[in-house]
Amino acid sequence: MRLATVRTIGSTEPHGTEPHGTETVRVDGDAVTTIPGARDLGALLADPDWRARAARADGPTRSLASIPDTAWAPVVPHPGKIVCVGLNYRTHILEMGRELPEHPTLFAKYPEALIGAYDSIVLPTDADDCVDWEAELAVIIGMPARRLDEPAARAAIAGYSVINDVTMRDFQYRTPEWFQGKTFEATAPFGPVMVTADEFPWPAVVSCRLDGETVQSARTDDLVFSAATLVAYISQIVTLMPGDVIATGTPGGVGHARKPPRYLRPGQTLETEVSGIGTLRNSILAEA
Amino acid sequence: MRLATVRTIGSTEPHGTEPHGTETVRVDGDAVTTIPGARDLGALLADPDWRARAARADGPTRSLASIPDTAWAPVVPHPGKIVCVGLNYRTHILEMGRELPEHPTLFAKYPEALIGAYDSIVLPTDADDCVDWEAELAVIIGMPARRLDEPAARAAIAGYSVINDVTMRDFQYRTPEWFQGKTFEATAPFGPVMVTADEFPWPAVVSCRLDGETVQSARTDDLVFSAATLVAYISQIVTLMPGDVIATGTPGGVGHARKPPRYLRPGQTLETEVSGIGTLRNSILAEA
Repeated sequence: MRLATVRTIGSTEPHGTEPHGTETVRVDGDAVTTIPGARDLGALLADPDWRARAARADGPTRSLASIPDTAWAPVVPHPGKIVCVGLNYRTHILEMGRELPEHPTLFAKYPEALIGAYDSIVLPTDADDCVDWEAELAVIIGMPARRLDEPAARAAIAGYSVINDVTMRDFQYRTPEWFQGKTFEATAPFGPVMVTADEFPWPAVVSCRLDGETVQSARTDDLVFSAATLVAYISQIVTLMPGDVIATGTPGGVGHARKPPRYLRPGQTLETEVSGIGTLRNSILAEA
Repeated sequence: MRLATVRTIGSTEPHGTEPHGTETVRVDGDAVTTIPGARDLGALLADPDWRARAARADGPTRSLASIPDTAWAPVVPHPGKIVCVGLNYRTHILEMGRELPEHPTLFAKYPEALIGAYDSIVLPTDADDCVDWEAELAVIIGMPARRLDEPAARAAIAGYSVINDVTMRDFQYRTPEWFQGKTFEATAPFGPVMVTADEFPWPAVVSCRLDGETVQSARTDDLVFSAATLVAYISQIVTLMPGDVIATGTPGGVGHARKPPRYLRPGQTLETEVSGIGTLRNSILAEA
């Protein structure tokens, strides 16, 4: 199944906060069907019966084309936790002359950073010189996960989506901790849909394009720590809950590592794709 | 005013998750008065009228002594965000031979890490060899804060509390990012009360005792980045919301920096105090 959160008419909000006015839908080809009683995908996943409930929804349907770009909310608008992973693509680590890490590098992003799949990314005035892209496969949790082994961790994954961990490099590197460059408000597109784990073709290709030019492309079988490994590892630290998100890390090709470095500029279009899921498409704007 | 969140009878839970069964109280000397309609201090602070509402509550009162240690919940049990600060005590930075930082070092902790003021700290089996103390002054936000200057940031502070940012040093240092050592489930005591900003005597003394031996002690006027500076700085990155928490950093004297290093051991009692607020008192236990 392909599931999404869409803003209901009259409630399109640019900042991903949408406290009300969203609904969960199932996308079957061109048909979009409302799943009754779930205000967003996170709320649906909190129901242990979410899978059957999503599958059996047979309410009114509309066409995919009838949903405007502005209606796509972050696929989980308010995850309790977003755990991000650094240094996780083997080829990129080795080409940088580093050793493969023994443990995953983890940091956090707050839900306030999320925007919808087609929302604009507004460069913050105080960090607009060095905003960078990081295309990533996102894992979405489907049941409480605490101290799980890998098979159980795999079963706790509801599905996969696409996220761009857009990063303010200045803030990321001004102190020893990356976090402050990773959680700027309304900067990280997330969606457009979650593909349930049973239908996600593995390995997938994670790619990023800037004005049509491919700047990142890698296969998910190049991940040092797989989705299930990450869920198991994090679950030894803290309980992962339904709707929680793991951003699994970005491959080589970010702008900051280029010579000379490249950053996002107003007027550009950023596209982030994971094969088998979909594509985020975001206009880059200067702050008014 | 001194405000707190207490577990209601029959719902004492050891892991700080308490989805139900708490209430907000005002503490006046030995009298504890329920504030009706606020399931915890975070819910109260979300009401713009929280101050007047807390002040006028005149419901049934009980004595402070009648409240068992196990009833004290984390003073805000479910903050949307906990932002932690590193490297923030001037004397400690200078004695370590470092330069004073230009920007605050920030990282995150998840609410699942919080426990009540007198709950036991259970050393996780997979990290029990190097669990360390970090006594800190906590700032609690009282209104939405976005891109504020320092005077406005100061006005957005609801009050102050006490937190121990208990840290798994092994996990903190096994990758470049500290986060995974900072967010272990049910390890960080927080409370017992929030003292509103108008009644908090500044500077205060932040101290930590292990089995009665003082291991940390510093004054809050030694902070490099003050509470208002931190709120202003973070608000340029992301909107701080009522109930959000900033842990302002720890002074010198942590166990890991000692020669030889010292860590928490089963059977010990950890006390964390901020003058004018109160004292956390936590037994250290081995995991069963």
